[in-house]
Amino acid sequence: MGRRTGRRPAVSIAIEMGKDDDERYRRGRERFLEIHDPKALRSVEGLDDLGRLIVETVYGDVYSRPGLSTRDRELAAVASLVALGRSSQLPAHLRAALRAGVTEDELREVILQTATLAGFPPAMNAMSTLKTILSGREPAED
Amino acid sequence: MGRRTGRRPAVSIAIEMGKDDDERYRRGRERFLEIHDPKALRSVEGLDDLGRLIVETVYGDVYSRPGLSTRDRELAAVASLVALGRSSQLPAHLRAALRAGVTEDELREVILQTATLAGFPPAMNAMSTLKTILSGREPAED
Amino acid sequence: MGRRTGRRPAVSIAIEMGKDDDERYRRGRERFLEIHDPKALRSVEGLDDLGRLIVETVYGDVYSRPGLSTRDRELAAVASLVALGRSSQLPAHLRAALRAGVTEDELREVILQTATLAGFPPAMNAMSTLKTILSGREPAED
Amino acid sequence: MGRRTGRRPAVSIAIEMGKDDDERYRRGRERFLEIHDPKALRSVEGLDDLGRLIVETVYGDVYSRPGLSTRDRELAAVASLVALGRSSQLPAHLRAALRAGVTEDELREVILQTATLAGFPPAMNAMSTLKTILSGREPAED
Amino acid sequence: MGRRTGRRPAVSIAIEMGKDDDERYRRGRERFLEIHDPKALRSVEGLDDLGRLIVETVYGDVYSRPGLSTRDRELAAVASLVALGRSSQLPAHLRAALRAGVTEDELREVILQTATLAGFPPAMNAMSTLKTILSGREPAED
Amino acid sequence: MGRRTGRRPAVSIAIEMGKDDDERYRRGRERFLEIHDPKALRSVEGLDDLGRLIVETVYGDVYSRPGLSTRDRELAAVASLVALGRSSQLPAHLRAALRAGVTEDELREVILQTATLAGFPPAMNAMSTLKTILSGREPAED
Repeated sequence: MGRRTGRRPAVSIAIEMGKDDDERYRRGRERFLEIHDPKALRSVEGLDDLGRLIVETVYGDVYSRPGLSTRDRELAAVASLVALGRSSQLPAHLRAALRAGVTEDELREVILQTATLAGFPPAMNAMSTLKTILSGREPAED
Repeated sequence: MGRRTGRRPAVSIAIEMGKDDDERYRRGRERFLEIHDPKALRSVEGLDDLGRLIVETVYGDVYSRPGLSTRDRELAAVASLVALGRSSQLPAHLRAALRAGVTEDELREVILQTATLAGFPPAMNAMSTLKTILSGREPAED
Repeated sequence: MGRRTGRRPAVSIAIEMGKDDDERYRRGRERFLEIHDPKALRSVEGLDDLGRLIVETVYGDVYSRPGLSTRDRELAAVASLVALGRSSQLPAHLRAALRAGVTEDELREVILQTATLAGFPPAMNAMSTLKTILSGREPAED
Repeated sequence: MGRRTGRRPAVSIAIEMGKDDDERYRRGRERFLEIHDPKALRSVEGLDDLGRLIVETVYGDVYSRPGLSTRDRELAAVASLVALGRSSQLPAHLRAALRAGVTEDELREVILQTATLAGFPPAMNAMSTLKTILSGREPAED
Repeated sequence: MGRRTGRRPAVSIAIEMGKDDDERYRRGRERFLEIHDPKALRSVEGLDDLGRLIVETVYGDVYSRPGLSTRDRELAAVASLVALGRSSQLPAHLRAALRAGVTEDELREVILQTATLAGFPPAMNAMSTLKTILSGREPAED
Repeated sequence: MGRRTGRRPAVSIAIEMGKDDDERYRRGRERFLEIHDPKALRSVEGLDDLGRLIVETVYGDVYSRPGLSTRDRELAAVASLVALGRSSQLPAHLRAALRAGVTEDELREVILQTATLAGFPPAMNAMSTLKTILSGREPAED
């Protein structure tokens, strides 16, 4: 194999994560904290380069774009995550949706409606997660 | 509906599709036509009992519930369908979203954002479908 | 729609869940208890309006239709849930299949065959869940 | 590994597809033709080694096992394929189900029920494919 | 891009797509053309802002990282796309894999192996696409 | 095995699992242990006939084929499993990939790249699993 041995050398990281990326990262981090709480940021940053890519791309690029309100972004994100059955990331986006002004009732309706598009099983799991969050308990994150 | 001549005896159909279901069906049909166009209704009704169940349940029950505006319902429906890669049903809901007041820009942003949750491939297909619709051409429905 | 603030008022529920729906709900509840046990019903009813929609639509409408025996319904439900990798709802339907007369051997064969259509990983999880159920232990429901 | 340099030499194929595999292949081919028609076999055999693996494993191993009737196998296969939204392989299994004694009504019920587990969109596509088959026309195989 | 006349004001576009992004875009475009052909680039660029995001993020950020050879990237991309059943994007990555040094035999083996993880149906579609590409014909891109 | 008292008569098992299958099983078991550790084999063999089918088909047939190195097989398997979000089988294949010579960095890159094809959520789960494995702790297998 011999193609690569060990950790990427510091110099290549320096090229890869230059001044430009620092600006995207800074902007993404700020946007992230408008949407989620600091605990969620620590969890994402714990994923190393993937965490950095998420902050830069999802929050620095996509979520920083004008054209869709944060409230609508979270409504759409919840609909997608329920449909995909992504139980690990759903709690953070349900909380973000509530912070962005989506009401509890609206979240219930989105979950109910997604049952017609993706089936009742993922909607059941999502509703159960929502109830746990609304009750103030911690949902199992996985 | 009188469609079936199979095993189900006529009397059981009468019970199953009684006065109550007629009311749900009527309500669902009305709601359907607020959201989609008559051509879409004909296409759903062409699916026989499944079409009837869709009209009654999705439009008569779920979409008739208060708690979420039609505009928000379509925003969420598009997000779910893009995430699931459901190319056959996406055109009807992109059109419904535009009719319900979701702007072209908002649809583009929903598709772009869903790329981060479901991957770029389904977002590419969805963006291509949106462009076809906005250009006034008919997208391939399957 | 006036986007709704706060909880749905009691009067709107009364309109929404009228006499007709009570009949569907009653029929669905009865059908549900023919298929699943009372503990499963409590779990579904704990999901509020989604639970109600499931009882009415899945059990009151779909599972109450003639044209497919309960035994065949559960055989098909298990095949779908294994294919979709829906681990949360699989235990209830494996138990329902056994109650409806699907043999242990037949369940094993359905899981084995579904491996060829959906891959070995979801079949491995399903077989492991089936073994737990047959041993009399409680499977992890999530 | 060093096991491979370039194209597979003829001798290694001889080792790989020995007498034992010929027996599995023969048994699989026979089972395949009990379930599907000769045109379907030609289409699978057109996939070279993958076609051979399918004939040997799916039909020679799995479908040749006792413990589940052909009729039940096809009922389960249709339920899985509808749930997965596998439009390319669904027509062959709808036809196989009809040949194995699943009635048209039963197929409609399986599709309708799968809508509750996997969402209405894949059920709509499947119902449309079934109607095409029952009308004697050729469904678009992809 | 300048095509939009919606909500996003010109000044915010200037901020959003500044000098930094131009550098990422330039690097992504170069990397894209090492992997795919100019026709594929035109097709991605036809997707407007989504196309730009793909060039910047997928090719400028991710595919430009050291740590994995282009040949291995395409081997992994093909495995993922076959598993996900993404028929629209598979032809471009099968061609890219061949350009990057993955052999025809290796592609066949990846598809065959993915059948065991994701089921035979997506592998059948993928093998059929590969055969079309190897024969020099154009696969149906959707 | 021995648990079955159902339909399959003992003699048919003898036919089904004859000398030929013993050879495939032996070859598959050997191949399995080149790739995974004995604990993983015990876990697969605990799945009875499904375990046997996996050993014979996946390891005795597919993984025993020439045409793709073990290192490349595991790179592709990890890419597919990350894309499919198969959390139960991912740890075993991450470990197998490391044993087969895929470096830690290469695994990180595969996960990062798969985020662009299947979305960030399954990549986040996979990266978290990889970090747990690299830290020497046991990942939750489900």
